[in-house]
Amino acid sequence: MKKIDEARLKNIVGERNIKTDPCDLYVYGSDSSVHHALPWAVVRPQTTAQVQEIMRYANENIIPVIARGGGSGMCGQTVPIQGGIVLDMKGMNKILEINPQDVYCRVQPGVVDDDLNLALKPYGVFYPPTPASSRIATIGGEIANNASGVRSVKYGATRDAVLGMKVVMANGELVTLGSHTRVEASGYQIHKLMVGSEGTLGIVVEATLSFVPLPEFRCMGVANFDSLKDAGEAIGSIMASGAIPSMLELVDSVAIKAVNKTMNLGLKEVAAALIFEADGMVKEAVDYEINNMRTICERHNGQDIYSSYDPKEREKIFLGRKKLFPALSKYDDNLASTALADDMAVPYSKMAQMAEKIHEIADKNNIIMTAYGHCGSGCMHTKILMDTKRKDQWASAKKAISEVYDYVRSVNGTTSAEHGIGLSKAQAFKLEKSDSLTLLACIKKALDPNNILNPGKLMQAPENWVTATNLRYSVNC
Amino acid sequence: MKKIDEARLKNIVGERNIKTDPCDLYVYGSDSSVHHALPWAVVRPQTTAQVQEIMRYANENIIPVIARGGGSGMCGQTVPIQGGIVLDMKGMNKILEINPQDVYCRVQPGVVDDDLNLALKPYGVFYPPTPASSRIATIGGEIANNASGVRSVKYGATRDAVLGMKVVMANGELVTLGSHTRVEASGYQIHKLMVGSEGTLGIVVEATLSFVPLPEFRCMGVANFDSLKDAGEAIGSIMASGAIPSMLELVDSVAIKAVNKTMNLGLKEVAAALIFEADGMVKEAVDYEINNMRTICERHNGQDIYSSYDPKEREKIFLGRKKLFPALSKYDDNLASTALADDMAVPYSKMAQMAEKIHEIADKNNIIMTAYGHCGSGCMHTKILMDTKRKDQWASAKKAISEVYDYVRSVNGTTSAEHGIGLSKAQAFKLEKSDSLTLLACIKKALDPNNILNPGKLMQAPENWVTATNLRYSVNC
Repeated sequence: MKKIDEARLKNIVGERNIKTDPCDLYVYGSDSSVHHALPWAVVRPQTTAQVQEIMRYANENIIPVIARGGGSGMCGQTVPIQGGIVLDMKGMNKILEINPQDVYCRVQPGVVDDDLNLALKPYGVFYPPTPASSRIATIGGEIANNASGVRSVKYGATRDAVLGMKVVMANGELVTLGSHTRVEASGYQIHKLMVGSEGTLGIVVEATLSFVPLPEFRCMGVANFDSLKDAGEAIGSIMASGAIPSMLELVDSVAIKAVNKTMNLGLKEVAAALIFEADGMVKEAVDYEINNMRTICERHNGQDIYSSYDPKEREKIFLGRKKLFPALSKYDDNLASTALADDMAVPYSKMAQMAEKIHEIADKNNIIMTAYGHCGSGCMHTKILMDTKRKDQWASAKKAISEVYDYVRSVNGTTSAEHGIGLSKAQAFKLEKSDSLTLLACIKKALDPNNILNPGKLMQAPENWVTATNLRYSVNC
Repeated sequence: MKKIDEARLKNIVGERNIKTDPCDLYVYGSDSSVHHALPWAVVRPQTTAQVQEIMRYANENIIPVIARGGGSGMCGQTVPIQGGIVLDMKGMNKILEINPQDVYCRVQPGVVDDDLNLALKPYGVFYPPTPASSRIATIGGEIANNASGVRSVKYGATRDAVLGMKVVMANGELVTLGSHTRVEASGYQIHKLMVGSEGTLGIVVEATLSFVPLPEFRCMGVANFDSLKDAGEAIGSIMASGAIPSMLELVDSVAIKAVNKTMNLGLKEVAAALIFEADGMVKEAVDYEINNMRTICERHNGQDIYSSYDPKEREKIFLGRKKLFPALSKYDDNLASTALADDMAVPYSKMAQMAEKIHEIADKNNIIMTAYGHCGSGCMHTKILMDTKRKDQWASAKKAISEVYDYVRSVNGTTSAEHGIGLSKAQAFKLEKSDSLTLLACIKKALDPNNILNPGKLMQAPENWVTATNLRYSVNC
């Protein structure tokens, strides 16, 4: 382990804001992925100037720096695979400005998504890219991964909402990118490149974000399907019809069973269900969208179709989906839910086939996989339920994942819709982006010549994700 | 003038597709800006392989290559300031795929915007970023400049519609960027960086674009104002209200006079008028938007407020705005309309002040300037009407422009909303982006180490735009 100049770091951020205790280092060695690796120190800057000083120190001494928000990343983005400093950005969590006249807000990167939306609510607006982890996910982390969630189908992902930002570069320089205006054509829009770069190109210290009005009306519906194929085809038909759902979610039989088991919801255990929502300022327009989606579901053999404007009814419909992530961990007491191959995107017409493929591959490889997700924006989630203590299950998972991504590439899909690449998806990512890897490396080298910003991720990550780091499970792979 | 290896180029593209005749070179020496400079040759590739071969040749021999579409650029983006090869991309004008199921199309860069929309119409969809120059502007040029137009307020600019692309890099390598899916978080989204890079980072040879359904209902309205301030404040109020206009345009007294004079429209010659539109699938929702905008206009002393769903009435309302660009040339027989300081963007709350500032600066500098534009998306257009034969008028224009941009920067606006930087706006751009210029240069050098892709533009452009090239007017500045 390389020596960190603790005294110098303490001098920058103060004694309270640096941690080198083994317990702390252990905690900061993992996120919501399967990976684990120890940092050398955890540093929590309070100001932009401190971030600049830390970067100057790290750049001079070639020490990896890994910016971290809520730690809800699914694929090892903040796991310090080469050690170094974990930069805990949660200390910079001020909402700097809410400007309803100009329809933007300015925030520090450590602001938690739900806190931002709470602060925006009195203005009658909301920040829509919100992922499922919004209770802990920070705006900085969401920017690093181009996060999105259930409402991205209508309102777009993080990249669509970021108007500008301030970024500390690898050498400690502070740059201002983008603008405070809705449209901009002034030169290279590097802030759009920063979104999704997983902390490998710079440290975001401030972001200017757009927001949208809270709708007057929201209506949510649900339809059951006896076949995953029918449900998948309904999604394709809805999106090809020009519909504008504010939510279009798939949950499959595994997901339904999991939430029934954990929460006694008593949901009908069908092959698949679609949850759909429309919103707007005018009820007739919401009705139009909902009726269109109901009709398409019917045409694809949807059953028990039901929709409601009532907030309590909507909550009931969505409850299962909302609690799905923790529920999957309890599907089978012997099986853990692992975030692997968790968020590919495919063209709409391939949604049905993608869902079926997931189950086919799971069966073949003797593991359990779910098919669910924000399918209206092309995103298919899965989780792998497996006995993480068994080495052979990891081998099966690895094989299954490989097959999933082979399919994704064969239909012009992409490796990650909204969770990023990190360590877990590097192999699939490199295969998908094979002809532009040189270009990616070229940009990385130009902006971070000493390779200190979150090194060993994305195109730099090891081929074999199982052995890339220790796994945070008691197994030796 | 550097020697071009004509034989080699002919071998690549065929004799028909290379031009070195002085007349041809003269024509390709200008776009819709004030600038003029001669290329060494004009080459019209027909295939991606030909573009790759040309780039390999140019890179080996350090010859500038300037990709060009319709030549409707306003600020000298395609004027070959350092000579070299103008790559006329209009030979690659095939629509490769229209995929209504997956809601995207794939096109070559030379496809003209209107032609794409004509081809999309039978599918009930349209490509919305469309600028006013859509009769000649190509998709490649629109991508190079992040073009947008009247409907960007609701539907976004080019960057929002580009899902992916194939790009030939400076060294001739072909890379595939982005995806065919709605959301993507797979690594650096370099295609978003390419949009707006003005041909300085690569040559786009194919683009995957999203489209949206043609609305069932469109309603357009107009309101007259006795003061520019009232009109500007109405824009701010409309946008802050959460309204979703599909168009929100300002025209000022100069603009109204110009179209009245040229086309005898008989429009009331007020200080300013707002043209607003809403669209959608449900009439009640369109009514809601229109009524909201009408009410806000009234509140800001708008008069003669009128709106209509009738296509003929809508055409009548919009005719003046549509023909404004050519009409401005005829406002005064002694004055030419020049594209200078033509498309800044400012925060909504500064729209009124920006419009007034334009007139104040024009008066002070003894020139005529208009204030108009897609104000709903924050974009304020202007044109400078001046006697282009008089050297002192150029000096006045230069001073006025400088003052306009000083104001834009002072209110956190940006130099270009949708026309790009090129040569004319380089000075303002460099002042605005002063703290990120090193970063821009760094990216440029990484992707184009020999500086052959449209050199001398953006951050590389000369400080003084008046003397940067010859002007395409009979004046000696």
